[in-house]
Amino acid sequence: MKWIVRVNTRNEKIVKEEASKEEVRWGGRLLISKFLLREVSPICDPLGRFNKFIVAPGLLGDTLVTTTGKFSVGGKSPLTGGVKESDVGGEAGKKIARLGIKALVLEDIPEKAGTKVLMIGGNQNTLSEFPELKGKFVSETIQLLRKRFGREVGIICIGPAGEMKMAGAGVAVSDVNDIQIRYAGRGGLGAVMGSKGIKAIVVDDTEAVSPTIFNEALLREASKALTQAILEDPKTENRHHYGTPAILMVANELGIVPTRNFSMGNLEKPEELSGEVIAEVIKQRGGEGDTGTPCMRGCVIQCSNVFPTSSGKKTVASIQYENIVLLGPNCGIFDVDEIAELNHLCNEVGVDAIEIGAAIGVAMEAGVLSFGDAKGAQDLIQQISQGTHLGRIIGNGVVMTGRIFGVRRIPAVKGQAIPAYDPRALKGNGITYVTSPMGADHTAGNAFETARTVNPLGLENQVENSRRLQIRAAILDTMGLCLFTRPPFVKKPELFAQFLKGRYGWDFTYADVQRIGIDAIETEREFNRRAGVSEEFFDIPEFMREEPLPPRNSVYDIPMEEMQRIWKVDIPSDVF
Amino acid sequence: MKWIVRVNTRNEKIVKEEASKEEVRWGGRLLISKFLLREVSPICDPLGRFNKFIVAPGLLGDTLVTTTGKFSVGGKSPLTGGVKESDVGGEAGKKIARLGIKALVLEDIPEKAGTKVLMIGGNQNTLSEFPELKGKFVSETIQLLRKRFGREVGIICIGPAGEMKMAGAGVAVSDVNDIQIRYAGRGGLGAVMGSKGIKAIVVDDTEAVSPTIFNEALLREASKALTQAILEDPKTENRHHYGTPAILMVANELGIVPTRNFSMGNLEKPEELSGEVIAEVIKQRGGEGDTGTPCMRGCVIQCSNVFPTSSGKKTVASIQYENIVLLGPNCGIFDVDEIAELNHLCNEVGVDAIEIGAAIGVAMEAGVLSFGDAKGAQDLIQQISQGTHLGRIIGNGVVMTGRIFGVRRIPAVKGQAIPAYDPRALKGNGITYVTSPMGADHTAGNAFETARTVNPLGLENQVENSRRLQIRAAILDTMGLCLFTRPPFVKKPELFAQFLKGRYGWDFTYADVQRIGIDAIETEREFNRRAGVSEEFFDIPEFMREEPLPPRNSVYDIPMEEMQRIWKVDIPSDVF
Repeated sequence: MKWIVRVNTRNEKIVKEEASKEEVRWGGRLLISKFLLREVSPICDPLGRFNKFIVAPGLLGDTLVTTTGKFSVGGKSPLTGGVKESDVGGEAGKKIARLGIKALVLEDIPEKAGTKVLMIGGNQNTLSEFPELKGKFVSETIQLLRKRFGREVGIICIGPAGEMKMAGAGVAVSDVNDIQIRYAGRGGLGAVMGSKGIKAIVVDDTEAVSPTIFNEALLREASKALTQAILEDPKTENRHHYGTPAILMVANELGIVPTRNFSMGNLEKPEELSGEVIAEVIKQRGGEGDTGTPCMRGCVIQCSNVFPTSSGKKTVASIQYENIVLLGPNCGIFDVDEIAELNHLCNEVGVDAIEIGAAIGVAMEAGVLSFGDAKGAQDLIQQISQGTHLGRIIGNGVVMTGRIFGVRRIPAVKGQAIPAYDPRALKGNGITYVTSPMGADHTAGNAFETARTVNPLGLENQVENSRRLQIRAAILDTMGLCLFTRPPFVKKPELFAQFLKGRYGWDFTYADVQRIGIDAIETEREFNRRAGVSEEFFDIPEFMREEPLPPRNSVYDIPMEEMQRIWKVDIPSDVF
Repeated sequence: MKWIVRVNTRNEKIVKEEASKEEVRWGGRLLISKFLLREVSPICDPLGRFNKFIVAPGLLGDTLVTTTGKFSVGGKSPLTGGVKESDVGGEAGKKIARLGIKALVLEDIPEKAGTKVLMIGGNQNTLSEFPELKGKFVSETIQLLRKRFGREVGIICIGPAGEMKMAGAGVAVSDVNDIQIRYAGRGGLGAVMGSKGIKAIVVDDTEAVSPTIFNEALLREASKALTQAILEDPKTENRHHYGTPAILMVANELGIVPTRNFSMGNLEKPEELSGEVIAEVIKQRGGEGDTGTPCMRGCVIQCSNVFPTSSGKKTVASIQYENIVLLGPNCGIFDVDEIAELNHLCNEVGVDAIEIGAAIGVAMEAGVLSFGDAKGAQDLIQQISQGTHLGRIIGNGVVMTGRIFGVRRIPAVKGQAIPAYDPRALKGNGITYVTSPMGADHTAGNAFETARTVNPLGLENQVENSRRLQIRAAILDTMGLCLFTRPPFVKKPELFAQFLKGRYGWDFTYADVQRIGIDAIETEREFNRRAGVSEEFFDIPEFMREEPLPPRNSVYDIPMEEMQRIWKVDIPSDVF
């Protein structure tokens, strides 16, 4: 990958330039942080002329290594006001990488609003009006693009929420058969894409040229080792069969499942939403329903699912733990079909299901609708797409919703909704939410992984643990690897170096790889520092420091000073 | 004034403690900054348990010096996220000072929402439920309080907007005859008061004890000198006859009058809204209409008015330049009766007319209603009091409104609406908006005063001028003097020292007085630094840097770096 493609959305000029030697070393999340710090004013309006919308495959994006179709989307976040990188699967990322594109950068905003499609191909990149897509739901957008561009292109697009520049809007990516809609959901990047007037990016890699691999044999060897280790890991089979919904029973046991706007941490009948039951329902109903499906070609984990109606028609694909919980229990909704329908609607409207689930929970607490009112919640999501006043409030996320309705129990850190891991009973995640440059984002460093080794209710080792997890996430997000590939790397971190040696010929130790992750975080922190959103200005929501969370009845009690230590402590450089 | 009265709104305990030696040196704005920095977590939720609502007369509050009934209201602002001091006239301030109260501090928030009245008296302070005030408009609130507490008490209260904790809510103060409603409007302090569950503060000073004046003769002499100088100043007569509306013709000539959401800087027919015409209309209509009225007893300027309907019934009192412009031309409304009605509604609902005028302008740009739709604007303000979705959006101010509706032309700095002085054609105000700890607030340092000596379109001397004006404002706000008393002090700054010597016996030079102003600003800046809202994180709205403002066709072009110099340069210590 050697090309940087820049699209000026105002004058419509598209420039393709070769990456510098320095830029070649950047990929995915690291690249986004470097580009933002270098090119974007940290105090700019996230939806104005000076923000940039960046798409970047990871460093291994153009290899056949499993899960490396994951790619990063980034920009200054309209939710947090700071740096944002959100990564996502689907088919588009690999195609961008195969075209040799290291970064696709949308710049400026158009003078007049429009509905444009950016076509990225081997020899030609074009920007054109596509007015019939205006206001269209995501699946219809994809269908219309298929009619024009065929079955083989990769598609990145936004729904009406992004077009209306709502801060809860995400960026959707289709899978190979347009069955799943994958989301770079967090941080409101759909609004940034919308601000550029780009409804969709279509990627045609038919003219792709194979990259020059430094050492094919070494890369293949490492790749094989990774695949084998993943397949041998006991977690993989569980993930394959049950996907992320498998988390629920464990999370319920820990007491961290947000219920009724974060007022409880567990469900009365968790088994109704367990991964096993969801897989069983899918199996029984048959039809379009499916489990163990990949979100991208080449993935050996295949943790996704297609959740069907009772008559076997697809409701939503894939249904995931975080979305289930935020749209479900957090809104007092416990029926899996109702939850699936809400998730489907979020995907169609083009919003982050976590952010919107949290916002609906707050609206319920405000009395706008009742907890458990699934029909009302559906209507709210529909209203987002219609741009009603209430829809715009909800579509702009949980903090806006809380402020508008005068609710003080707002589950958010740095302007972004807390995901389905209540930090009162998983304290390491509280540290991640506060100290990650990403704000409240479990994918930035999820202590759920380490709940057996670090007491989730205790005060000890939380800071060191969160830091290690955050660096781990930053490395994987820079490589373009799925977070679920981590077990083999935990055992054998030097595998990263082998990949980079094989692909690029870089003579790295694992310590060098770790520095990549630290570099990404430090670059992001510097951007945030200049934007006025450093970690010292944000704490866990006040109510979580005083309101005990049943059933563990714990409050969040890690002091700010303790959390602020995080980027000042050393960690062993050989630990992934 | 030696008492600090603290009211815990959760456990309802009221404590009266004697001010320390250090605290005695603080008053008004300086006191608020000191208390906030000392006692309030800069990163707390402005509407949560840890913010405080502070009422503080100025250092001269308990003297008979003209205009010193002005007092300060403060807290962490829900609009800016930083320190906020807003000062206001009316009758309550002098009564608080006469009771010897240096600061009244509302702490914590109640567990259950309520509608309480805080009664402050000589020997007794009580907090009691007053449910019949719930949701009441400001004038009805005042009427009901009069029935209970009589004609002589001072009243500070909020409208329904403050009760609903909307960030555009202000704090209302009645005048001696309940004709005028004065506002500590800016920064959303009405929402902070509302978060404490306090609908009104009633001040009964019948048991007041005269303060011990250090040197009565000296104080009287200084007071006489000030009064005489004010009366001799040619501006005073103009202010007395025409009030702040007199600004309009000059501002129109400068081209700084925000029109149609800050897209023009002048009016086609400015004379229809000129101070002279407004005064003439008031005179012709007679009835309850009046000009040259005081907002507090003892004021020798008396710049207020009572604007009547054509049949002579009061519409609003007092109608002021900033409100006229934001609710009028900025919304494409040029009829003085329609503007007066909008202003009246803002006063009743309990919102800052500047913030709400700007928010309506943005809603008009978004197409929610049309520019010029006065009936629609009235309805919007009514909707604020009803708490409809749209009303809540508007009531939360211009930034929230712009974000919700996806409008990029948001006239705000640090979350707060820009007042009726467009910084593109009055660049010194741009510097004040960006670098004042108060955000976009003309009263923090208004270069309109100096438009004849510092070219409002030029780049020269703007930083030094804004700094001088900001310190000047901070001194007056700490003394408890109206900004309109400044001419005599400009000629003879040592008059301040005489006042402090006469009142307290302090041996001050003017340089010491100047240090008071600088101390207030530096303390505020420190609070903001810790809150993450330092001046380096905010610029003039992006559109003002690229969209020339007719008729001067100037953009705002003072670089950030130049503005950031402001607190690093020295100014002569003898200049007020």
